[in-house]
Amino acid sequence: MRIDKLKQTAKNQNKPANFAVFNPHNITYFTGFQGAAALLIPEQGENILYVSGVNYEQAKAEVKGFTVQLLKRGENLMEKIAQQTGNAKLTVDTLPIENWRSLCKAVGGEEKLEPATQLFRSLRQTKDKEEIQLIREACKIADVGIKAAQETIRPGLTEKELAAEVEYAMRKAGSDGVAFETIVACGACCAYPHGTVMGRTICEGDFVVVDLGATYRFYRSDITRTFVAGKPTERQQKIFDAVRLAQQKAIEAIKPQKPARDVDAVARELIEEAGFGEFFVHNLGHGVGLEVHEGPVLSPDSKDILEAGNVVTVEPGVYIPQYGGVRIEDTILVTADAAERLTHASIEL
Amino acid sequence: MRIDKLKQTAKNQNKPANFAVFNPHNITYFTGFQGAAALLIPEQGENILYVSGVNYEQAKAEVKGFTVQLLKRGENLMEKIAQQTGNAKLTVDTLPIENWRSLCKAVGGEEKLEPATQLFRSLRQTKDKEEIQLIREACKIADVGIKAAQETIRPGLTEKELAAEVEYAMRKAGSDGVAFETIVACGACCAYPHGTVMGRTICEGDFVVVDLGATYRFYRSDITRTFVAGKPTERQQKIFDAVRLAQQKAIEAIKPQKPARDVDAVARELIEEAGFGEFFVHNLGHGVGLEVHEGPVLSPDSKDILEAGNVVTVEPGVYIPQYGGVRIEDTILVTADAAERLTHASIEL
Repeated sequence: MRIDKLKQTAKNQNKPANFAVFNPHNITYFTGFQGAAALLIPEQGENILYVSGVNYEQAKAEVKGFTVQLLKRGENLMEKIAQQTGNAKLTVDTLPIENWRSLCKAVGGEEKLEPATQLFRSLRQTKDKEEIQLIREACKIADVGIKAAQETIRPGLTEKELAAEVEYAMRKAGSDGVAFETIVACGACCAYPHGTVMGRTICEGDFVVVDLGATYRFYRSDITRTFVAGKPTERQQKIFDAVRLAQQKAIEAIKPQKPARDVDAVARELIEEAGFGEFFVHNLGHGVGLEVHEGPVLSPDSKDILEAGNVVTVEPGVYIPQYGGVRIEDTILVTADAAERLTHASIEL
Repeated sequence: MRIDKLKQTAKNQNKPANFAVFNPHNITYFTGFQGAAALLIPEQGENILYVSGVNYEQAKAEVKGFTVQLLKRGENLMEKIAQQTGNAKLTVDTLPIENWRSLCKAVGGEEKLEPATQLFRSLRQTKDKEEIQLIREACKIADVGIKAAQETIRPGLTEKELAAEVEYAMRKAGSDGVAFETIVACGACCAYPHGTVMGRTICEGDFVVVDLGATYRFYRSDITRTFVAGKPTERQQKIFDAVRLAQQKAIEAIKPQKPARDVDAVARELIEEAGFGEFFVHNLGHGVGLEVHEGPVLSPDSKDILEAGNVVTVEPGVYIPQYGGVRIEDTILVTADAAERLTHASIEL
């Protein structure tokens, strides 16, 4: 079904009807398998998954509906693809420039190839039922991670100790692994949106930002909560309330056919009104699926239009240099008429 | 110093003396910072790190010796680079084809650019003292993970429970996060070299392959041990002994100036002699550093020559379909005259 959708979309966009797929996540999207070198989807005939020796037996056992072909040592993948497709033009998802040149050489010229990153991105950004179910599972596990953080945070704990507890809780709850490098940042380091886990120790009164996700059968989740290790000050509460309100109103603004930038604007205006506009230094959100960052993008300059089946984060933040920061993030499904939170951890200081 | 080495190497290879660096690991290699969009190293003048709003404050605080430039919303990175470099030719580490075309357009044509994946790969594959120290730390933490596995494995445990324990132990020992998706495979699934953690439960007598690594300040480690949940059979012991001997002899064969393929051959011949040749379905090893897979490659068709300062895995394996498999892997430093194990976990069934 996903391949039918690919073929139909390519036809609508007048792209070549033969596809060479190299991005590992795109390959997983069509085959459910991780660890192949390339996937060839010709206009007619068998779809071929090229797999080197290390993953060949596993691919043969697990992949259904594709011809699994062993890529032997010394064989040139690009030449094999060229031999298979003959003189046909190819839609290529993406390749680094040097591999692109190898493929050009193999097929006999750049005019035989058409890069199409955006085509594959747009296919993947609207999830089908099976994908939504897997993301739901990944989100449930992420909620367990946040609950563990909430129960563990106390002055004297290091960021690494906290990361240990939340990742352990997620594994026990069924995670196939983290969705991305867990972020735990305390104190003034919360002012860095991507301040990863370092050697810092949580102090009394610190903001603590915990940004984590789980993977479940290749699909990911993404959630952030901000806590205070102790009793929040008035200023901390004020920042937190502004971010929470911005998130809530942005989620309420989500519906199909809405430009993604309009949802970003709802959150951004509320944070500006609260007096923190200059400190909201990133986009409101991004799609989540096989990758933790994919389409659509919720930002002031996004051209994406939301559709039912999109799964996006909504994650406003306020980051005050030398002081600290707050981010509140959930993974959200765009439904037929509105939005549904897939992560459910409570939002309170 | 790393930039001097880059400039000298490029000069020797007649590559343009201005560098545009986009690969995140290459950027970290030169700057010690993760999360920039690009790094520009001109022949003369200041080195510029381009960072978007989300990581700008952190970059300003943490990056020394580079001009940190904010990449504002709506600004075109490729055009900024082109404006900065004027009419100069650029050595580019790598770019996906569509971004490559954007850069071509910005600088005024493909003849102004030269891709150089291999140049950067070769620089990074010989580690300096500081890098080796960080990899040593990452290896110590990986040893803790293997010890935790050894102490935990028992029939009835699931692969995820085992992964939970080893990752928890590594975090507590100071890991900044896993070096790659932890592999735990039991029973017949050990026959898949990359059989990741799934829902399986360890049974009495199963082979259990545990392949893990830690990250320490961006540098990684990689180790595999194979256990039996219970008393090994004669056949299990025979396979294990063949793999262990192959690993030991391959490590003993390592020294500077040796072709990497010759080291692979030592292990491959021993496994063939033991009667398992057809079941050793992958390369003997790969470089480890900022990435878990980098140069040099230890394989039958490798063109790499080993040098002091290389850090490589040596990981022979035997994988028998429907039965199971054994892999034994250590992270190894090529020294001035031989090899030194950086991972030290005991090797026994």
